[in-house]
Amino acid sequence: LKKSAIIVAGGLGTRFNAGLPKQFLLLAGIPVLAYSIEAFRSAFRDISIVVVLPQTHISRWEEMCRDYSLEGTHRIAAGGSTRFQSVKNGLAMIEPVGLTAIHDAARPLVSPGLILQTFDIAVRYGSAVPVIPVTESVRSVEGDQHKPVDRSRLRLVQTPQVFMASFLRKAYEQPYNEAFTDDAMVAGSAGATVRLTEGDPVNIKITTPGDLTIAEALLAARSS
Amino acid sequence: LKKSAIIVAGGLGTRFNAGLPKQFLLLAGIPVLAYSIEAFRSAFRDISIVVVLPQTHISRWEEMCRDYSLEGTHRIAAGGSTRFQSVKNGLAMIEPVGLTAIHDAARPLVSPGLILQTFDIAVRYGSAVPVIPVTESVRSVEGDQHKPVDRSRLRLVQTPQVFMASFLRKAYEQPYNEAFTDDAMVAGSAGATVRLTEGDPVNIKITTPGDLTIAEALLAARSS
Repeated sequence: LKKSAIIVAGGLGTRFNAGLPKQFLLLAGIPVLAYSIEAFRSAFRDISIVVVLPQTHISRWEEMCRDYSLEGTHRIAAGGSTRFQSVKNGLAMIEPVGLTAIHDAARPLVSPGLILQTFDIAVRYGSAVPVIPVTESVRSVEGDQHKPVDRSRLRLVQTPQVFMASFLRKAYEQPYNEAFTDDAMVAGSAGATVRLTEGDPVNIKITTPGDLTIAEALLAARSS
Repeated sequence: LKKSAIIVAGGLGTRFNAGLPKQFLLLAGIPVLAYSIEAFRSAFRDISIVVVLPQTHISRWEEMCRDYSLEGTHRIAAGGSTRFQSVKNGLAMIEPVGLTAIHDAARPLVSPGLILQTFDIAVRYGSAVPVIPVTESVRSVEGDQHKPVDRSRLRLVQTPQVFMASFLRKAYEQPYNEAFTDDAMVAGSAGATVRLTEGDPVNIKITTPGDLTIAEALLAARSS
């Protein structure tokens, strides 16, 4: 079965307040984006990887690829103004056969084990979306009003999310909707029954500079 | 205005798989529980603190208090079989006047600043519950079915949660309900309109051994 991965790093990370988009920042001396590339290559030697980057940062990334020996490990697509458009641009660069994983570059701690697991589930069920439970109390807010939500029913959604490549390409022909915060929503909106699978609490999403510190600690703990 | 705090460490932490309950484990060389005590004392020199512990571990904690110079900083109440009962036992030991903060010992990184802020909001509005936004996509699961949830409306609830002491004691006279995962739910069920305030992403809840590693990294980043 043909396997491909689209690693989405299309955002300029204006929330991050760093000079460079977060996917270019160094985590234990290596660019954040490089971790995801390496994890997919460790999981499957023959996987085809497309990295989606902001158009304005592609040449900078190509330089980094020379510096960090990443040349030849992936192809590059230019991002769009939304995550939806970025994924769509990535999908246009892969053959619509077999299974495709969509992964956020903001999750550099994804393990080869989680990648193998999501592909394995997707082989059997047609899709795989990793989720973890919520350990905190949750409230739902509307204006000044808010009420408790039963957290036992909620799951936090991670990436990689794996789908049949041909189906996903079709799903991304839908008109854009602001509610599309991940690929499971795009696929669901196109009629797919998405299969949930157990995610990994260590597979954190880096959204603030503090999260980079956390990621370094988790990396150190992993290698010790 | 009289101020008190109940630090809840009533659980035996069977999920943690460590020999000792997590509140006794060392974080950068100091017991997890000691951090919360210190944060409340830094925020208010005259605050009255009650720590709720499993009955079986009280003498062990008293030993640790000698080892870590924590004697005289707090009083101890015996925990119950639920968090609800543990808080209730703690409330029985404080005078029902002024404001009371309920705080989970599993959040050792609470800052004096967040404590000051929650008390300040509670002085003005009668209660204060710190919350943070959700940065990940969320799904709601029911049996085999699941659907996306609008994460922009959801908030993760932290502690300390501050209330009028007299009101909270009355609220805890309600019959126990399994849905009571925090004090905001108990207070809301007793008729209070709970005031939300901005929490702190660093104020993480320690639920797994990996979270201890994260907490150490955050502590190191804080002091550097």
